[in-house]
Amino acid sequence: MINEHYLHMLENKSVIRELSEEATRKGAKIGYENVFDYSLGNPSVPAPESYKETLMEILNTMDPMELHGYAPTTGNPVVKKELAASLNKRFGMNYQDIHIFPTAGAAGAIAHALRAVTKEGDEVIVFAPFFPEYNPYINDTGARIRIVEADTEAFQINFEDLEKKLTDNVAALLINTPNNPSGAVYTEETLTRLAEVLHRKSAEFGHNIFLISDEPYREIVYDGKKAPYAAKFYEHTLTCYSFSKSLSIPGERIGYVAVNPACEKADKLVAMFGQISRGIGHNCPSSIVTIAMGRTCDDTSDLSVYETNMNLIYDCLKELGFTVTRPGGTFYIMPKALEEDSVAFCKKALEYNLVLVPADSFHAPGYFRMAYCIDTEKVKRSLDALREFVNKEYPDRA
Amino acid sequence: MINEHYLHMLENKSVIRELSEEATRKGAKIGYENVFDYSLGNPSVPAPESYKETLMEILNTMDPMELHGYAPTTGNPVVKKELAASLNKRFGMNYQDIHIFPTAGAAGAIAHALRAVTKEGDEVIVFAPFFPEYNPYINDTGARIRIVEADTEAFQINFEDLEKKLTDNVAALLINTPNNPSGAVYTEETLTRLAEVLHRKSAEFGHNIFLISDEPYREIVYDGKKAPYAAKFYEHTLTCYSFSKSLSIPGERIGYVAVNPACEKADKLVAMFGQISRGIGHNCPSSIVTIAMGRTCDDTSDLSVYETNMNLIYDCLKELGFTVTRPGGTFYIMPKALEEDSVAFCKKALEYNLVLVPADSFHAPGYFRMAYCIDTEKVKRSLDALREFVNKEYPDRA
Repeated sequence: MINEHYLHMLENKSVIRELSEEATRKGAKIGYENVFDYSLGNPSVPAPESYKETLMEILNTMDPMELHGYAPTTGNPVVKKELAASLNKRFGMNYQDIHIFPTAGAAGAIAHALRAVTKEGDEVIVFAPFFPEYNPYINDTGARIRIVEADTEAFQINFEDLEKKLTDNVAALLINTPNNPSGAVYTEETLTRLAEVLHRKSAEFGHNIFLISDEPYREIVYDGKKAPYAAKFYEHTLTCYSFSKSLSIPGERIGYVAVNPACEKADKLVAMFGQISRGIGHNCPSSIVTIAMGRTCDDTSDLSVYETNMNLIYDCLKELGFTVTRPGGTFYIMPKALEEDSVAFCKKALEYNLVLVPADSFHAPGYFRMAYCIDTEKVKRSLDALREFVNKEYPDRA
Repeated sequence: MINEHYLHMLENKSVIRELSEEATRKGAKIGYENVFDYSLGNPSVPAPESYKETLMEILNTMDPMELHGYAPTTGNPVVKKELAASLNKRFGMNYQDIHIFPTAGAAGAIAHALRAVTKEGDEVIVFAPFFPEYNPYINDTGARIRIVEADTEAFQINFEDLEKKLTDNVAALLINTPNNPSGAVYTEETLTRLAEVLHRKSAEFGHNIFLISDEPYREIVYDGKKAPYAAKFYEHTLTCYSFSKSLSIPGERIGYVAVNPACEKADKLVAMFGQISRGIGHNCPSSIVTIAMGRTCDDTSDLSVYETNMNLIYDCLKELGFTVTRPGGTFYIMPKALEEDSVAFCKKALEYNLVLVPADSFHAPGYFRMAYCIDTEKVKRSLDALREFVNKEYPDRA
């Protein structure tokens, strides 16, 4: 019998998708180069040449039986060692291979991490604004989502609201730094204070609260800074990573969970992930892509274009009077719309060939998101359209 | 809080794994070439040269942004067309791209198919003997497994028991032909009769019963025959395929679900699979592996070794007086043990360096499985060990 739940999911057409389809229609009419599409978070720079070379070398040198054969349930041990060594060197951690679990991107990583540390009826805290896909990830485990309202100043953590919502039912917190959609990077102060809250509440409730840290934008940080590594601040941290953005290979679906060695059941969690795979039918990522991950985990694409784009857009937004927090990383920016209804705002923008996305589905009503992973030349042209749009439609703005 | 369910799963060490570990220990002592390991269903022939060439060509000719970019939620449309065309040509079907959903192997395919056509509390029928991983696949959806006892003559379907167990609660049947572990291939007669039962019961209950057909061994069929294509016999069929065995690429985790175009909600099911992916965090298989699948879907490794091995083993088993049904395909054979307790039987065999696997976990107590995906030279040597084992331990057998 057809599952009605999944059938109904098809009927909820998202605003983002509607806008994106409208943009495609527009593009067909006036030429795609004239549509300024800020809707989708797709990397706009190619994978580094080293990625192709690595795949070629693997194909040319490895025995096909070994290359294309089954990995153990908990992942290719050689690759696990390579990833652990890289993380230890970069972040001063002490991971061993047994703490690393290769996954199908951050999505697969989060799906495994959530299942391992929650059960039916538990609560998982997320922080507004947040990636809307956190809803199905969490709902599917049987746990319930609990939303901490945004810190609308700096898009760090609203600790007052966190203290209220962090009850005994909460099994885990899911954070995302650098953040989609705000572009905010959690500071050392934020992570230190978060750890303090988690330690205090864990002691009060008599059980550890896990921190699931979703970090696919970790390598896209501006002003020469580095994103503080969440697991360094709190021991019960499961770090979820994807190479989609740093290597520009989102279609390859490759990433990992790294379990802090000081975490509760650190020696068991990766084995548990292996068991979780059995039920969801996704045992390991592709073997060739996994092997390539081990060899390229310290490489990135040329990510500098995102900072260039951000500065151009941020300056223009400020010039036009937008309320906006300067992103510390990612390829997103989330300004306040110039009217309360951000859907109406984005629909008007479309008349000027600007595809902006209302942030309502990110639990940030009144804001909109721009994914500036597009060519800089196009960004420049889009700013004229943005000026025209704002000056014509909102001449009386403050 | 650590999920106790997955933690407990770690404690249930399987007999197969224990035996396999014992075999590894033995191998370290006496040399692995002297251990006759029939425990694991790993292909023993390499991927065809064309597979490597295809991957190289993709890397050398495709734009990296296109190659490594996101696919649509429902899969790469070019590959979907290629697969549909291949299936239409080979099996006289009329699939279109909208009926094909690329997955991470058969496991991913079954996970999606089951979720789409069952809900909490439904029953899914499986047929003994069956692949033990069907338990977690089914349990994880919230549906319950219902086992139809084996037809121990020919390992086709025990229709008498099926009629008893096929109640109004049953949402789907999960079949596996050619079969792991028996090696049986469902005949046209079996599939015709199965369709008749399903049509009759669907009419009686007022809802369609889905058939999920797990076919990773479809290309390994003996005596120059072909496996009848289940979807050809019953319209509400979701065909789950993996290239793990036919192309010897189990680590690449690549396969698909094909929805019979005459199936209930045939135009919606693939879109539903896309929604299911969101919750389990596995959106598409690797893009490069998916693209390669489209181009190599009509290729296979040289699979002839499996038939050679089967004939050698089958003849020897018959000569030694075993009760055994000759496999029609796969790389498995499932004889009856020479004592009631097949675990005891397999433990004794280990003394003769033979790694046989009790079929208890396949719901076939008293039988054992041999996975003869090993070199023919080794098979030949193993038969002397088998003769010695049987003649020494069971001199008085019938």
